[in-house]
Amino acid sequence: MQKLQASFNGMSFSVTILGSNSAIPTPERFPTAQVLNVHERFFLIDCGEGTQIRLRKFGVNISRINNVFISHLHGDHVFGLFGLLSTYTLLGRKKELHIHAHRDLEASLEHYKKYFGTGLCYDIVFHPFITTMQMEIFNDRHLTVELVPLRHSVPVAGFIFREKPKPLNIKKDAILKYSLGIKDIRRIKDGMDYVMESGELIPNSVLTLPPLKPRSYAFCTDTSVFSKLAGILKDVDLLYFETTFSETDKKLAKLTGHSTATQAAKLARQANVGRLLMGHFSTRYKSTTTLEKEARAFFPEAYAVEDGEKYEVVQVRVE
Amino acid sequence: MQKLQASFNGMSFSVTILGSNSAIPTPERFPTAQVLNVHERFFLIDCGEGTQIRLRKFGVNISRINNVFISHLHGDHVFGLFGLLSTYTLLGRKKELHIHAHRDLEASLEHYKKYFGTGLCYDIVFHPFITTMQMEIFNDRHLTVELVPLRHSVPVAGFIFREKPKPLNIKKDAILKYSLGIKDIRRIKDGMDYVMESGELIPNSVLTLPPLKPRSYAFCTDTSVFSKLAGILKDVDLLYFETTFSETDKKLAKLTGHSTATQAAKLARQANVGRLLMGHFSTRYKSTTTLEKEARAFFPEAYAVEDGEKYEVVQVRVE
Repeated sequence: MQKLQASFNGMSFSVTILGSNSAIPTPERFPTAQVLNVHERFFLIDCGEGTQIRLRKFGVNISRINNVFISHLHGDHVFGLFGLLSTYTLLGRKKELHIHAHRDLEASLEHYKKYFGTGLCYDIVFHPFITTMQMEIFNDRHLTVELVPLRHSVPVAGFIFREKPKPLNIKKDAILKYSLGIKDIRRIKDGMDYVMESGELIPNSVLTLPPLKPRSYAFCTDTSVFSKLAGILKDVDLLYFETTFSETDKKLAKLTGHSTATQAAKLARQANVGRLLMGHFSTRYKSTTTLEKEARAFFPEAYAVEDGEKYEVVQVRVE
Repeated sequence: MQKLQASFNGMSFSVTILGSNSAIPTPERFPTAQVLNVHERFFLIDCGEGTQIRLRKFGVNISRINNVFISHLHGDHVFGLFGLLSTYTLLGRKKELHIHAHRDLEASLEHYKKYFGTGLCYDIVFHPFITTMQMEIFNDRHLTVELVPLRHSVPVAGFIFREKPKPLNIKKDAILKYSLGIKDIRRIKDGMDYVMESGELIPNSVLTLPPLKPRSYAFCTDTSVFSKLAGILKDVDLLYFETTFSETDKKLAKLTGHSTATQAAKLARQANVGRLLMGHFSTRYKSTTTLEKEARAFFPEAYAVEDGEKYEVVQVRVE
């Protein structure tokens, strides 16, 4: 299976698939979990049973995870969380762990602390959300996370992770040529021209390269497809969208609040996303090749994921 | 690693190791879980995270499990239970599932039902126990299960699974030779002689073989070793006993309520068990060979288990 290439400047923006099955796990496909690497800071997305085992297997250092986003409170998306919390205690974690989830998770966290959390040696900071409106739920120096209301049998959130817009890149040879100081560099990065002591004006475009384009990743499972989604997901670089079923089981998909490979592919096309990752497969399909083929009829850049695969988003400059 | 041979008459009595690590799982060693096959009826013992995945990987049909025994309420022995309960719902289980555990598990089962048990389509029958006294907690046509109070940081139960004493085996050729009816056979199996119509008496010993010896399996983790244990575990055929640590980490074992390979081996020798299975290994040891060697210095029939291994107890006749 073809993967997206590593970004050229070493600033990671990649997702590793930890579990890609729907509710009943198999030894090859664990229940839903992924980890997004944004500049070597790791964001755990969903945490199905066995997530901590997958993280270890696929070489992710769990101590670098500081934020966990849970899409919804079905067991196959959250039952791995409690074992992970206990492992952090055994490893002597000190840093806060931030958990972003529907507000009802609080009861489970309290239950965990009361019955299984003996010796808890770090703070769990719970960031409850509701899933009725689109909103920003995370914001730091490099990244924002936007909640997308989805449609399923229980409240479900999708998440869009977006790198923040970046400043202009100053050319290294320009720094040397004009002996630019830190203050000069800051102003030039903000878009200003440079005036030499002689009074000569050096235009900003001579001194800089266009900035790197902010990258984006959207995670949407479990959900039916609905018309507003294409607008919300417009132009994301990489979209993980559930394809629990084949179009031949369209009725079952509708009945259970899931999507088909065809529906996901049409959505990806309409939203003009870069690539589509397909997952959350029903165990009724022996192979995912058929689902991938089904999707590619509508959107060629569709990939049925496997546990352990890593997909990078290439970094490019703004044109 | 040498395994016990299959019993000669096809009546299984074997344990399959599903997880053999201590609290922090690895991709090779999951947290504690085992399944005991008694005459093709399956008893799940502990249910660490990922147990349902292991059951599938090692070819155990989960629908044949009707009883689950949980030793204690630490996450690495119980966090796989909730995913298994949900999978049974997805598979449309109808049969009752019996769960035997410390009474405090009831709160977690109630929490599960309230927040994650939507659509639960079978009855969970909870059999709470306390761990302060040795007692029988299960009894059916073929088997009894005895609770053994252990010593750890929380209440812990060991379990001894014993086949019930079996009747005399009637010789097939005797049935033909004397044209024995069902009533005759029943009486002969109870030890009576047979009187022919001619008045001739056929002694029971001519008609029967000695019965098969009842087999036993004991499961003890997490615990320190203490003096009364050898008497309680006397003569069991197969003993799984935790060896979290090496004797070089004896102080740590004492501090954490665990045992060393040496302690377990000395106990096995003193209790005159058939074989000792060692497990619940701390991740500090790169290989379990050293622990196995340490134990064999005191008890040669000691085996450091691996996930996926199956140990059978050979069936023999009473002498």
